[in-house]
Amino acid sequence: MRPSAARRTRRDVTIAMTRTGEGEYAGETDPAYWNLIGPFGGWIAAVLMLAVLDDPRRHGEPLSLSTNFAGAIEAGPYAIRTRNARRNRSTDFWRAELVQHQHGRDVLCAEASLVLAHRRPTDSFVDVSPPEAPAPETLPAVPANAGAPSFLEKYDMRFATGNPFAGGDPDRTVAWVRDRAPRTLDFPALAALCDTGFPPIFLRLGKRVPVSTVTLNAFFHVNSSELAEIGNDFLLSEGRMRVAHNGFFDCTTTMWSRSGRLLATTEQVVYYKTTS
Amino acid sequence: MRPSAARRTRRDVTIAMTRTGEGEYAGETDPAYWNLIGPFGGWIAAVLMLAVLDDPRRHGEPLSLSTNFAGAIEAGPYAIRTRNARRNRSTDFWRAELVQHQHGRDVLCAEASLVLAHRRPTDSFVDVSPPEAPAPETLPAVPANAGAPSFLEKYDMRFATGNPFAGGDPDRTVAWVRDRAPRTLDFPALAALCDTGFPPIFLRLGKRVPVSTVTLNAFFHVNSSELAEIGNDFLLSEGRMRVAHNGFFDCTTTMWSRSGRLLATTEQVVYYKTTS
Repeated sequence: MRPSAARRTRRDVTIAMTRTGEGEYAGETDPAYWNLIGPFGGWIAAVLMLAVLDDPRRHGEPLSLSTNFAGAIEAGPYAIRTRNARRNRSTDFWRAELVQHQHGRDVLCAEASLVLAHRRPTDSFVDVSPPEAPAPETLPAVPANAGAPSFLEKYDMRFATGNPFAGGDPDRTVAWVRDRAPRTLDFPALAALCDTGFPPIFLRLGKRVPVSTVTLNAFFHVNSSELAEIGNDFLLSEGRMRVAHNGFFDCTTTMWSRSGRLLATTEQVVYYKTTS
Repeated sequence: MRPSAARRTRRDVTIAMTRTGEGEYAGETDPAYWNLIGPFGGWIAAVLMLAVLDDPRRHGEPLSLSTNFAGAIEAGPYAIRTRNARRNRSTDFWRAELVQHQHGRDVLCAEASLVLAHRRPTDSFVDVSPPEAPAPETLPAVPANAGAPSFLEKYDMRFATGNPFAGGDPDRTVAWVRDRAPRTLDFPALAALCDTGFPPIFLRLGKRVPVSTVTLNAFFHVNSSELAEIGNDFLLSEGRMRVAHNGFFDCTTTMWSRSGRLLATTEQVVYYKTTS
């Protein structure tokens, strides 16, 4: 999976992949970003985005990312293929596929549609407000515990409300979160951070049930220099469920900077199973 | 574009297209669903969804639809290609592309990712409430006017708040809407209805500015028999903008049945231009 034809290596603080051809990448899953039965979904979204952003032909910055988690990803090598679907003057439409060789054949495990855009100055408005939350320094870090997925160790997370470990408001979770690694915030890191919220159905049911994200859609409302200014500071996330019905629930999340800037909004649809 | 090889015709109440091969369809744009400079976005989303739903190999019902409006669609013939990306026991992942022959070459004009799923009975919850609104019968229908896009004539729309023609609450638009044609509600019709809201930035700015949707993501929270029970009754939509920044705003919409059932939630990202 790492042929000598590889021309250069794209290395994120946390993701390493090798460019094996035009629109072709190879990498290996990272045990540090493991969830219960596969890679953490935010890592998958970040990997797909990173492959597109690496392409010298792309232009613009991420505006929207729609990631489908099509099937299980096993520990080991993976390949990514990217393709430009359409290029305009201000917008650029890309697709990325993550493929693994499983049981003797190549199977699509995840796919993403990434829309890039050039932003130009206009009148701007924010018509929503960040949630109330004490400063992160005043809140306890979520402790590592034996049963937790390993990816949580990559994040410094501090719950303001809706702490799944402490009961509280079952209506929403408000938490500060940042990468534990001292990395400057960029779009792949933000895409991954968008998926760090706890499944709100755990709060609603008061217990854990099997869940698996089907699709994660993230919409970005800043540019890369605005992200870089945040550095490694905490982001404030507010996540809530609107509906859970016959096997699938939604989760809508807003991600804010400490200064109250709306960075991203996301919508997930997640499979769940209850036995009642 | 309608070769004799066509095996059968898929005919919606409002969309006609010819199946020209496996995963291949041909149709023509419909002047009745025209917006200012191209087809109404909801019609485009519905056309892409309909092509996937027509395929006998698909299984399950729509769970999520992510539609990218990649470029201008001209009046005239179009082709659609669909492809299954991955099939699981409970979920089925499809892509659809709308292509037109423009200026001597085939160009991608719109693309969609459609996730289908089999829903199974589970504990269900709705943690949001429909907006307050007077019964639609007590509200005036939006009058047809000379400058309005033709697609609006296909819908019976009645504003409760945020009527762009009457001022009012600039924070959100609450409106009843249904197809004027007496059709039974189905997923393509619902996908189109999800896009009937007025661009909230018109309310925020107090004037019309050039806008163009880049991506429309819809998430469905019911099955087809639950939709069919609604028949041709009005749906209640609540749309609002959270952020507008440097050329792109978002619009999040919830679609309810008259009985208070949450049918769909959507998130759009829309290009806009201001001159300040």
